[in-house]
This record gives sequence, C-alpha cells and structure tokens, in this order.
Amino acid sequence: MSKKITFDYWKHLYAHRTGNMYSSEIRDLLALSARPDIISFAGGNPDVKSLDYHKLEKYVKRALLVDGDISLQYGSSEGYYPFKTKLVEVMKLEGIEADEEDIIVTTGGQQALDLIAKIFININDYIIVESPSYAGALNSFKSYEPNIIDIPIDKNGIRLKELEKKLEELKNKDIQVKFIYLVPNFSNPSGVTLSLPRRKKILEMAKKYNTLIIEDNPYGMLRYEGQPVPTIKELDSKNGSKHVLYMSTLSKLLAPGFRIGWIVAPHLIIEKLTLGVQAADLCTSSFSQRIAFEYFSDPAWKDNIKNFIKIYSSRRDTMLKSLEEYFPEGSSWSKPKGGFFIWLKLPEFLNSKEILADAIRNKVAYVPGSGFYASNNGYNEARLAFCSESPKDIEKGIKILANIIKDKIKLYKSFK
Amino acid sequence: MSKKITFDYWKHLYAHRTGNMYSSEIRDLLALSARPDIISFAGGNPDVKSLDYHKLEKYVKRALLVDGDISLQYGSSEGYYPFKTKLVEVMKLEGIEADEEDIIVTTGGQQALDLIAKIFININDYIIVESPSYAGALNSFKSYEPNIIDIPIDKNGIRLKELEKKLEELKNKDIQVKFIYLVPNFSNPSGVTLSLPRRKKILEMAKKYNTLIIEDNPYGMLRYEGQPVPTIKELDSKNGSKHVLYMSTLSKLLAPGFRIGWIVAPHLIIEKLTLGVQAADLCTSSFSQRIAFEYFSDPAWKDNIKNFIKIYSSRRDTMLKSLEEYFPEGSSWSKPKGGFFIWLKLPEFLNSKEILADAIRNKVAYVPGSGFYASNNGYNEARLAFCSESPKDIEKGIKILANIIKDKIKLYKSFK
Repeated sequence: MSKKITFDYWKHLYAHRTGNMYSSEIRDLLALSARPDIISFAGGNPDVKSLDYHKLEKYVKRALLVDGDISLQYGSSEGYYPFKTKLVEVMKLEGIEADEEDIIVTTGGQQALDLIAKIFININDYIIVESPSYAGALNSFKSYEPNIIDIPIDKNGIRLKELEKKLEELKNKDIQVKFIYLVPNFSNPSGVTLSLPRRKKILEMAKKYNTLIIEDNPYGMLRYEGQPVPTIKELDSKNGSKHVLYMSTLSKLLAPGFRIGWIVAPHLIIEKLTLGVQAADLCTSSFSQRIAFEYFSDPAWKDNIKNFIKIYSSRRDTMLKSLEEYFPEGSSWSKPKGGFFIWLKLPEFLNSKEILADAIRNKVAYVPGSGFYASNNGYNEARLAFCSESPKDIEKGIKILANIIKDKIKLYKSFK
Repeated sequence: MSKKITFDYWKHLYAHRTGNMYSSEIRDLLALSARPDIISFAGGNPDVKSLDYHKLEKYVKRALLVDGDISLQYGSSEGYYPFKTKLVEVMKLEGIEADEEDIIVTTGGQQALDLIAKIFININDYIIVESPSYAGALNSFKSYEPNIIDIPIDKNGIRLKELEKKLEELKNKDIQVKFIYLVPNFSNPSGVTLSLPRRKKILEMAKKYNTLIIEDNPYGMLRYEGQPVPTIKELDSKNGSKHVLYMSTLSKLLAPGFRIGWIVAPHLIIEKLTLGVQAADLCTSSFSQRIAFEYFSDPAWKDNIKNFIKIYSSRRDTMLKSLEEYFPEGSSWSKPKGGFFIWLKLPEFLNSKEILADAIRNKVAYVPGSGFYASNNGYNEARLAFCSESPKDIEKGIKILANIIKDKIKLYKSFK
C-alpha cells in the first residue's frame, strides 16, 4: 500500500530542534549492512554469534525464574543495585574506583549521551569534540542545539595546541565550555588512542577552564596489542573526581540487544541524570539489567572477552594487511590497537559518499566520513568497521573497494 | 561511606532545563512501595506475579535460541517489523486500523511521551493537559519548558466548555496549541473515562484549531464493566487520520520490565520520531521486542488479559467497598470502570502530603495529588492504586487510612 504524502500537514507544530535532527548515516546504512549478500564495514555490530548461547540461556532463565517479580517489574531510575555492584568490580579491572552511588544505568550508551546533553546543554552553548567524532554523539548533542567546536586529531588523539587555543579564545569571550567529549581508547570512528601525556594535560585544561570531560569508553577492554593507558577518570580520581564523567556500554562486552549503558559521575550529577531518566524512559529494563548481572556474576565473562579479542584482532590484522596489499598510493589509514574501526583517508579529489554508491552496487558497505564531523569536513574520508565480517570476507571486501578506488583515480587522471 | 557534598561544584555547567526536572513523587515513593511491610497504593505496578512463567520461559528461550543473532544485535530505530505486525493485530481488537509504517516502537510509554514532547515543544510553547494528569507525562513535557494549560475534568473526562474557551482565547492571541494530552480510558490518575460525545467534540476542536490530540491508552483493554468506547484514534481514521497521535505500552498487557511502548502516527511524523529515537537510545531492545513478539504470537496472551481483568476487578471492588465502609463523610472518590486507579478527594482542610507521613508510619503508601497538576492544585487529593495488593491488604490499608483521616478531622474540629 502506497502511503507517500508529500505535503507535511503538521509542519506548523514541530519544534525548531526537529529540524536539527538528522538521520545518522550509520543508522540509514544499517538497513544495507543487514542484507546477507553485502560485506559490511558499516555498522559497529559486535559478533554476537560467537557468544555462548548455552550460558546465555542459563542467565536468561535465572532472570526470569529466580527473581521474576523484580526482573519483570518497574525498576529504580538509578539502576538495579546488584548490577551496579558488578559494574564496580568490572570497572576496577580498568583502574576505575567508583561506588554504586556514583553510577547510573542507562538504556545503552546512546541514552547516556542524550542524558548528558540534556542536563548540560542550553541552545547556543559551546561544547568541544574531537574531529572526527562519534556520529551518534554528535546526533544526540545536536538535538539540544549547541555550538559544536571540533578540534582535529592526529595519531595520538585530539591535538592539544588547537584545543588550548580554542579554550583560551572562548574564555576571553567569557564563554563557558560545557564539556569536552572524547573517546580516548580506539576511538569511534578513528581507531586512534589518546596518549597518556595528552590525557594528563587535557585534565589540567579541564581544571583550568573549569569544565568537564566526557570520557566515553566502550572499547577499552578490547585491546589487541600494547599496554592499557589509564583512563582520564582514573587520573581525575587522584584529584577529587571533579572533572570527568565516565561512560561505557554493555553493547561491546556482551550484546547491544539488551540496551545497557552506564555513567559514572559525582553523586550530585547522578541525581540530575536520574531526573533525566525519569523523564526519558522511567528506568532501564529490569529484565536486561538482571541478565547483565548474571553475566558478570559468572567468571566466564572474562573468557568471553578473550574470545572477542581473538576474533576481532584477527579481523583487524586481515583488514590492515589487505589495505596494505590492495589499496593504491595516495590513501592512508589509522592502525588501531583495539576497538572496531579503521579510519581511511582517500586522495583529496575523491568523495567517499559518491564512491559508496559504487561500493554498494559491488556489495560492499562502509560509512562515509562526513557524518563524523560537526562541520562539513571528511568528504574524502571513511570509517571501516572490521568487527562484523570474517577475515575471508574482509579481504574480499577490501579488494573490491580498492579496485573501485583505483578506477576512480584512473578516471580522474584521464580528465586532468 | 558518607558522600554528602553540600556545594554543587558543577552548578555553572547545568542547562536551564535541569532546574525544571523535578523528581516525580511517584518515583520517589516507589522506594517505599517496594518495602514488603508496606501496603502500597502508590505505584501502578502490574501484578507480574500472576503471569504464566512457564510460558514466558518458552518465549524468552525462543528469543534467544531461534533468532539470537537478531535479538542480541542492534535493531532498527523504527522497531522490529514482525513485532509491529503483531501490534497491528492487537490494536485491531480495540478498533484501531494502522499499518506497520505508521508505528514506532519505543522504550516504554515514557519514551513515547518524551519523543512526542521533543519533536513538538519549543520553550514557552503551549500545550493542554487534563487536570489532574499523568505525572510522568507532565515530567517529560516540563523538561522541554512549555506553558502547560490544565483543564479540569468531571466524571465524564476533560470539560469541554473550559477547553474550548481556552483554545479560543489562545487563538485570539495568535498562539498555536501544539497538542492536547489525554488518557481517555480509566485515566491515570483519575480513573475517569472520557465519554463518546466528548471524544467526538474534542476531535472537532482539534480540527478547528489545527492541533493534535495525544491519546495515551495504556489501560483500554483492562475494562471491568460496561462497553468499550471507541478510541479518538478510531474516530479520527474516518477523517483521514490527521489529528491523533495514539500511544500505548506493553507494561500493563505483559510486564513493565521489558520497557516496550509504541506510537501510531501519520508516517511523516513517524519519520521525525525515528530521528528522535536515534538520538535518544538508537533503538528499543531487540531482545525485549522479540519476547513481546513471541507473547502476542501465542493466542494465550488473551487469557492472560482475562486473568488480569479478574484479578484487578476484584481489587477495585474491594477498594471501592472499603472506601464506602470506612471513609468518613466529606471525602469522595472516582468509580473507575477499569485501569488501576481511584482518585480520592479529602475535605479541603486536609493536606494529602502531610497525611502521607502518618500513613507511611502506619505502613500504608499512596501518591499525594499535587504531582498530577501542572499548577499547584490537588493538595487535598490523592491517587490510590488498587492494582498491586491483595483484596485482604486493600481492605486493611483503606481501614488504616480511614482511621488516620478520621483522627485528622477530629483534631481539626477540636481547634475550630
């Protein structure tokens, strides 16, 4: 049944912000990446197939049969306390000292971003992001209509000179920066890790300019080489824990289908975030939280992470090797030590959005770069997710992409 | 460990709206109602204990083992299509014709309210609610900082004369009302049902003043006497479906722990709401939606509703009878034909918030009326939920409440 209506009858009723809600390119492409004939480097979909379904069945049954009255009922807006106790233990492995009172459970990491934006951002406020930055975060932030300042990154993360210059410039105009949003470990989308000296200096800047750092760490436990770098949150703790809001998600440690994320913050901020949750969706699913509690109560969860690391690191290796082998000169890419993503830069005369159409015709998908910039940069860049496909398909897909790009370069040069 | 900090170090960073986020009295009281020694008339917690756990176990296992790759993964922001197909069938039972394209699945009914507020409300916009109105809705709306106009109800629902007068008054000031929010069936908190003639006239007003009706219908299927009244959505369909956004939730048809709600709207509005979901939490839990799909795929779900009706109607009967038997003169209450709530009015010299302290000391909880008013009315009113306690405890609790109120009246009169 055709339902196309071209006249928007309700236009006079929409809020201004509705015009600021753009469909995330990532999400629009998920439709494509779901098609089984497509080799998808698009969505950051974890390899849920590799989970131990037999164990999961046990957790799910316990959630229902041991404490069904709680799992099926409304829960508290702060989150299910026993699950928060598990989160305290899990975060300790990454050097983070927190207690249950400092944690709020959210409906995925995305809601964590939305709540943070909601409690801090007024229209025209200033926030700072690394550039490129996570598209989903930009999407949440934009719906509160701030000015988003993007600061470029290099292979050690956000560039400090540019950051400090901007902070100073805004301070001189009496503008309070509300927060600096960072994914310091294996960043989405760039794959880059923020170096320890930079972490320390950014924390000093947050102090000096009296602002907050939002440290988003979904991938920290998925490291494939080298030693972990302390989180900015850990550095901040030595310091009274005033300048970092830390957040993470279960989507990469277990599965996205349960929609579980969390924020660690000073308790006074947790209280504000709790009011945000009450208005947003009352509470995060009690059933999901109970399953997550069971998952972390079984020491086997660490084997599961080890297994993820084995799977993803081999996929990363294959993608890096294939890029090296097939891609033409003039392209460059990041070399992530963990996480899900490689950031690709094509020659400046190429446009990654235009190439995507060709790629999809040839059954390969990725996300063009521009969605990861608050400004309109990144037209010749792209995010390649290596998390979802087998090494064999990764090699095949990269070869296909390389051939398309070689053809484009040839075409361009023939017109020059 | 004491963590009390009296100085709010981050005050300079909060958004204005953060000051507009009030802790909902309902939610604060949930902590109390969870204590097993309290007879709780506070939260609208459905009787999840009466569910068939054996059947639920089957659904949950199927969600995991038949289609785990989908249930554990990110889903589409519009919702899981097979579940929407079930929703189409379910809503048909209440006379609503919709197709999958007109539905978006949300993280509970609360997120539906938040998304609607987000896409329609600018700061200082005008919206209209019935008075008293659902506290959770007021809470969502307030965080977008509108002017909330409340229109009183009587035993047939929102009063039309006052509504039309207000609409006309605003129109004369060139003010566009963004929407009118109603719970037409067994309203939360009043228990009142909007009559058919009023439904028709309100729809005409929405047309005349070119605005929307938000029809929130969580309790429609939980009717304990009399014949169903057509939804405003059904009346609007005959009419091109332009003026009603319909919403409901699984929380009362299955269980709140899964956090599933939905909105039915013209497809162009669904597109805006979808952008809202992407920024809010990416998608509603795939796992929960798959369980809900299994639930509605088993014809036994209708028996479950019949069982709920049997349980709740006996609780309602007991509460009404006990109020009649024990409550002193000068109090009055609504006689709901379905749903979860009775609305209580005490003599004007009594304050339901003050009495709550005494009530809790005597192990009975309810929600004071003022949280259900956008203005500061309702000080001598209260919401009594009859859904959660056994008939025996309902009688006991009402008797305790009645005695407290009799004492208060005696005390008041002795000082007069």
